[in-house]
Amino acid sequence: MAENLVNFGILGCAKIAIKLARAINLAPNSILHAIASRSLEKAKQFALQNGLPETIKIYGSYEELLDDPSIEAVYLPLPTSLHVQWTVLAAQKKKHVLLEKPVALDVGDLDKILEACVTNGVQFLDGSMWLHHPRTMRMKELLFDSNLVGHVDFIHSTSTAKMPPEFFENNIRVKQDMDALGVLGDLGWYCVGAVLWAKNYELPNVVSALPAGVTTNSAGIVLSCTACLNYDQDHKTVAVIHCSFFSYTSMDLSITGTKGSLHLKDFAIPYQEGSAFFDLASPATFMDDQTGWNAETEKVVVDNQIPQEAFMVQELARLAQGIKKCEFRPDNRWPEISRKTQIVVDAIKKSIDLDCKPVYL
Amino acid sequence: MAENLVNFGILGCAKIAIKLARAINLAPNSILHAIASRSLEKAKQFALQNGLPETIKIYGSYEELLDDPSIEAVYLPLPTSLHVQWTVLAAQKKKHVLLEKPVALDVGDLDKILEACVTNGVQFLDGSMWLHHPRTMRMKELLFDSNLVGHVDFIHSTSTAKMPPEFFENNIRVKQDMDALGVLGDLGWYCVGAVLWAKNYELPNVVSALPAGVTTNSAGIVLSCTACLNYDQDHKTVAVIHCSFFSYTSMDLSITGTKGSLHLKDFAIPYQEGSAFFDLASPATFMDDQTGWNAETEKVVVDNQIPQEAFMVQELARLAQGIKKCEFRPDNRWPEISRKTQIVVDAIKKSIDLDCKPVYL
Repeated sequence: MAENLVNFGILGCAKIAIKLARAINLAPNSILHAIASRSLEKAKQFALQNGLPETIKIYGSYEELLDDPSIEAVYLPLPTSLHVQWTVLAAQKKKHVLLEKPVALDVGDLDKILEACVTNGVQFLDGSMWLHHPRTMRMKELLFDSNLVGHVDFIHSTSTAKMPPEFFENNIRVKQDMDALGVLGDLGWYCVGAVLWAKNYELPNVVSALPAGVTTNSAGIVLSCTACLNYDQDHKTVAVIHCSFFSYTSMDLSITGTKGSLHLKDFAIPYQEGSAFFDLASPATFMDDQTGWNAETEKVVVDNQIPQEAFMVQELARLAQGIKKCEFRPDNRWPEISRKTQIVVDAIKKSIDLDCKPVYL
Repeated sequence: MAENLVNFGILGCAKIAIKLARAINLAPNSILHAIASRSLEKAKQFALQNGLPETIKIYGSYEELLDDPSIEAVYLPLPTSLHVQWTVLAAQKKKHVLLEKPVALDVGDLDKILEACVTNGVQFLDGSMWLHHPRTMRMKELLFDSNLVGHVDFIHSTSTAKMPPEFFENNIRVKQDMDALGVLGDLGWYCVGAVLWAKNYELPNVVSALPAGVTTNSAGIVLSCTACLNYDQDHKTVAVIHCSFFSYTSMDLSITGTKGSLHLKDFAIPYQEGSAFFDLASPATFMDDQTGWNAETEKVVVDNQIPQEAFMVQELARLAQGIKKCEFRPDNRWPEISRKTQIVVDAIKKSIDLDCKPVYL
């Protein structure tokens, strides 16, 4: 147990846990202390296959890991239907929580989780890695500090990944009792998060799924969804999101404003781990004779020393240390971002359930 | 008068006429023969200011130009409200027609124009330059011949240009008696055209304007519009377009399909005149450990010897020569493309007029 590092445990051996185990050790202020699976054998296999150090503690149940007093923070990559049970227990055991998205099946469930975190004085953070990438920070400065894009009129975001046939039969992400939000939770979470981010966390007032964009399976699980998020009050903005298990890999974010535009094609998972870029079109515009543009969009490159998921872990560890050493209160900002994202995801789901009628927030 | 070149006349001295005068002389099979304005003085000024050769005939009325028997084709950059009158007369005078977009105020007016062209055996072509760019041809091959993008699930297109305050007071594009379609005709025409192009000219079955995206002036002229074009029958596709006189310069076209995606940020007016590119994401996808992608999107560069507007002129001149020398009939394909575009533009306008209710085609 390292003195100045926050000790992490991981609950569950999902594939994404490999990425996070690495991230926890790459972040400068955290270290992986233990992993748990419902089966000791499975946890051992996971540690072996992924080359985890022999010093890592291995537990054959989630409870045992949560009872380990040296663990200060846990990462939970469990199916969404298990989030309330295990996150509430983790909070009760005074563990800070890094919860994989979608954080809950609906905002009612999320509120149970957040309430447990508040009651127990632990930090909550969801697994939206891209929010912690230095590229995102740089774009935020341009959008909100430098106002280089002006008022945002239109936002386009996609998050798609073409899944193989067997996915639609077996995967937990299309099962009613596991991840009942389907693609809306798995990939739509990113798109909704990107829209809210671009609007500085103002909620849309009307949300509608678009009939031609919605596909569900026989159990009603959403497999693809196109939806529009309308801000139709004082400062109008329309955002359109497209998330799908049928469309080929895409992660577009385009923001069109009165003074410029931003474009990314890899917003949630950057092409490269150590460096990422975005395209900024300001002041690029048509030449006077309209035979071309006076400039192409500017490619803004942002380097990063550690991957975005390590920045995410670092953020939770930083907040955990502040709570421990300086008696800071948990930071409300991150749970609020998760909660707003969940509210919009819920509204889109409701619109789908109402045959794509508009849902007012 | 050159023997093997098609002689063009230009009706009107709009700013865009400068670009087309140049294009007519850059195209290998056409030559600018005459220009006309309602005032001889204005036409002379235009010729002088833009360095047109002294051999160009200059007419002080549109009728005189149309009565010149050596002119075989005319380009009409007039306000939309004048299109029926002058295009029908041009057709009656047996001139092939290159008509600036939007071609008509509605499909009823367009049908008057197209009927006159058919009756008089002249070719009709609208001024959508980008459809003639070699880049567009290359993308078409990838989309429809190589099927590299697979089934198209989602299309995103913007065409925006931020206009100065005086534009909203004085410009013909916001005047009820001139260009009553406003931004929908001026810029939305491109977005609608791009969607139809990407769907190989299949019409959407439902069109809806999105309330938060629509702004009109006091006369009801559309100044900005976001709309969705739904293909919700056998092979679902959703397309979202955003056209605006408020948003900063953008010309996005993103096509997301089951096997790949295409991205352009300059689809209607390429950044550079002599070379253009698009981004193709196939087979770029996430690496297995999701720490990045196995490749960035591929930048496909397409060079062009002459600008896209010269390719457009060349196409009309080629068809005109075929009609003259080989007694070919006018090509139906181009008028059909214009007509389908107009049908969808009309449907969006109708949706706006109906408070954004869906309009079925």
